[in-house]
Amino acid sequence: MIQNTASTSMNIPNSDLPRVVIIGAGFAGLQIARNIDTHQYQIVLIDKYNYHTFQPLLYQVASAGLEPDSIAYPIRKILRKKKNTYFRLTEVEHIDFDQSTIETTIGKLAYDKLIIATGATNNFFNNEAIERNSLPMKTVVDALDLRSKILGNFEKALNTKDLAKREELMNFVIVGAGPTGVELAGALAELKNKILPKDFPDLDLKGMQINLIEASDKVLAAMSEPSSEKAYQYLKQLGVQVWTNTFVTDYTDNVVTTSGKTSFKADTLVWAAGVAGTFPTGIHESEIGKGNRVIVDEYCLMKGSNNVYVVGDASLIESDLYPKGLPMLGSVAKQQGHYIAKTLNNEAKKVEAKPFIYNDQGTMATIGRNKAVVELSAFKSQGLIAWFLWMAIHLMLLVGFRNRAVVFINWAWNYINYNNGLRLIIRPFESENVDNDVGSITSTQ
Amino acid sequence: MIQNTASTSMNIPNSDLPRVVIIGAGFAGLQIARNIDTHQYQIVLIDKYNYHTFQPLLYQVASAGLEPDSIAYPIRKILRKKKNTYFRLTEVEHIDFDQSTIETTIGKLAYDKLIIATGATNNFFNNEAIERNSLPMKTVVDALDLRSKILGNFEKALNTKDLAKREELMNFVIVGAGPTGVELAGALAELKNKILPKDFPDLDLKGMQINLIEASDKVLAAMSEPSSEKAYQYLKQLGVQVWTNTFVTDYTDNVVTTSGKTSFKADTLVWAAGVAGTFPTGIHESEIGKGNRVIVDEYCLMKGSNNVYVVGDASLIESDLYPKGLPMLGSVAKQQGHYIAKTLNNEAKKVEAKPFIYNDQGTMATIGRNKAVVELSAFKSQGLIAWFLWMAIHLMLLVGFRNRAVVFINWAWNYINYNNGLRLIIRPFESENVDNDVGSITSTQ
Repeated sequence: MIQNTASTSMNIPNSDLPRVVIIGAGFAGLQIARNIDTHQYQIVLIDKYNYHTFQPLLYQVASAGLEPDSIAYPIRKILRKKKNTYFRLTEVEHIDFDQSTIETTIGKLAYDKLIIATGATNNFFNNEAIERNSLPMKTVVDALDLRSKILGNFEKALNTKDLAKREELMNFVIVGAGPTGVELAGALAELKNKILPKDFPDLDLKGMQINLIEASDKVLAAMSEPSSEKAYQYLKQLGVQVWTNTFVTDYTDNVVTTSGKTSFKADTLVWAAGVAGTFPTGIHESEIGKGNRVIVDEYCLMKGSNNVYVVGDASLIESDLYPKGLPMLGSVAKQQGHYIAKTLNNEAKKVEAKPFIYNDQGTMATIGRNKAVVELSAFKSQGLIAWFLWMAIHLMLLVGFRNRAVVFINWAWNYINYNNGLRLIIRPFESENVDNDVGSITSTQ
Repeated sequence: MIQNTASTSMNIPNSDLPRVVIIGAGFAGLQIARNIDTHQYQIVLIDKYNYHTFQPLLYQVASAGLEPDSIAYPIRKILRKKKNTYFRLTEVEHIDFDQSTIETTIGKLAYDKLIIATGATNNFFNNEAIERNSLPMKTVVDALDLRSKILGNFEKALNTKDLAKREELMNFVIVGAGPTGVELAGALAELKNKILPKDFPDLDLKGMQINLIEASDKVLAAMSEPSSEKAYQYLKQLGVQVWTNTFVTDYTDNVVTTSGKTSFKADTLVWAAGVAGTFPTGIHESEIGKGNRVIVDEYCLMKGSNNVYVVGDASLIESDLYPKGLPMLGSVAKQQGHYIAKTLNNEAKKVEAKPFIYNDQGTMATIGRNKAVVELSAFKSQGLIAWFLWMAIHLMLLVGFRNRAVVFINWAWNYINYNNGLRLIIRPFESENVDNDVGSITSTQ
């Protein structure tokens, strides 16, 4: 079916069926690969990791509550029973729309249908100092780096008699009070209150601070006023200091400078403040809209194209149904993936496509033990019931029975014991005499 | 109690009790820290990792059967209920025996009693090419690197149409047929037979080779003839090629050169062939014996010293009871640790020390599903019963109930499904066009 087989250098067999290339195995890409009819299409799924990441629980990896294998799932295992489906571990560097070809680190590949499901990356708003010195939380690797940094800093705090330096090591500044920032702040507060006093009896943890900085006037701004207010109360109860209406303007030499009067001396800055679409080169600037997202029509088709779709966080939908666009959420990505699979399956049967319709299933966030806010389409809930609901829904959404079982055991164990055993610093730890040189302490991968 | 407090710059409180410094939180060091009487001594335990590693199961981490958190345990959690005990995450660089001081990356510390429990590292017998190009299997980090390499190589094999290159990527050479080499070879064979055909349906796995090279004339040379012979049969049944009486002499440009006629073109060489004691500088050359181990007397005391003990793999005992010394085994280390704790506790009560007596509890190795050899003091066993025994004993030896539960679930799950979900390549994967450049492919941390 492929017209220009000559330009294909990737090792994918030729096929009589049209080739669908999916870039990205996130929520959207995986839905397509799982639901597309492989009697109608040859599927090539590409990702730069060999696993799918369940991003909503990344913060629990960072805060030593879960191991990566609980929230990541090997893509090959997911696709095991799919015929005519090829996974390749590589990165797409460029798309040649004229030639209908993608260019990867392992060669070129021609496509009949292309789906760009490359998601979002951090948006540092061109602040190089923040980009260089802060820690993001978008991938499993980020989360593991952050975990090693957090745990390592307490080991370092023990090694100095200088109180100011010790507090700098134990000051955790999180920028952005969306779900990621709020959930991480809550998890760190639980670490401070329940776990660390037992692990570090000879360290005065009163000096540990968790500062959550938010540019807007409230936390969880996407949720309703009562949920937002409740989340704020929970954070305060747990000892998190919340700074709303505050921008971070610089982070150099461990000093967090803000738009307000306050600045912070902190060894750790977690950036959860902004995301932007990310995708290979080749897309014309005029097709790119707000938040570096590719503009698509109500069928998720890239402008002017009839065979290139963009879905999930990488896309910005222009549809009369959604004059404000759609939020960058896992549920949007998942539904768009499902929609594309259905659209392509219908196309093979000559059934005309219908516009994408988003079914808003609500949002939720957990702040700590027995502390969550949930807004579903049916009802809203806060506190203990919301917390159990949050756990139940996240367990359901996880891929794979084994993952669900292991996560459940970890959560149940933590609930009973306030304690699990996941505080391993696997990344190389640079043990240094912190009294001599605090500025250069890093514990990166 | 410490005489020369002036030379202490590490942040450890002064105490009226004698200070016992333990270097290394392996089997030996941990036993001492757990069993010593903290009413009699102040304890400082030092390790360069913040976790204790259960080394016998490292090969399962490397072969994607277990996650690191199942076989590693945070040291602070183990010591949680011990008063008067200080853990420090650092590396001891030098010991000044005249001053009774250790020198670490975070400062100096004076000791009254010193226990060197630093274990063993790889012995490459001064072959630099092998040291540079092979992968060891001594630490959690090694095991994770090896796992990423193994899984990554199959992804790369898919990307080449060149059969020779593909086979080079799928050729795994393991040097050393002791328990580590044999168990890893068996686990890789199980991967080849049960897991990989489902993960890589479009890859011809007949080209995958597992070559186990051993310098002596048999596998598991420390075990009896029948066990050794049975292990050899199991390996053959699983498809492992075993080369005895063979030395590896070089490993450059992916060519494994041996003392025999055979050479191998292989992208992966695992070094499990030799270990040597490792310890900080400061120990006089005359005190160091065979296998770079520190010579100790029947009380595990370093020659000419009455307050420096060396235990476990780092020590070479000279005792009339053991004219041939003792093997470098976890059980020796554990018993010596227990012995030192008892000896020091007795010393505080003015009870004289007795020489160390080793209680040989036997050895065992698992080769694959239902395939193990076990030699206990009471009886010997092979096959299914040995395999279950092997699992039961290893579960018992693991630290912590949660670890036991998670390992048990993983093993039970694998037993039923021939499959778990741990095949994540967490380490950065360098996707390259292998057809252009196979020689330089590495997937290191």
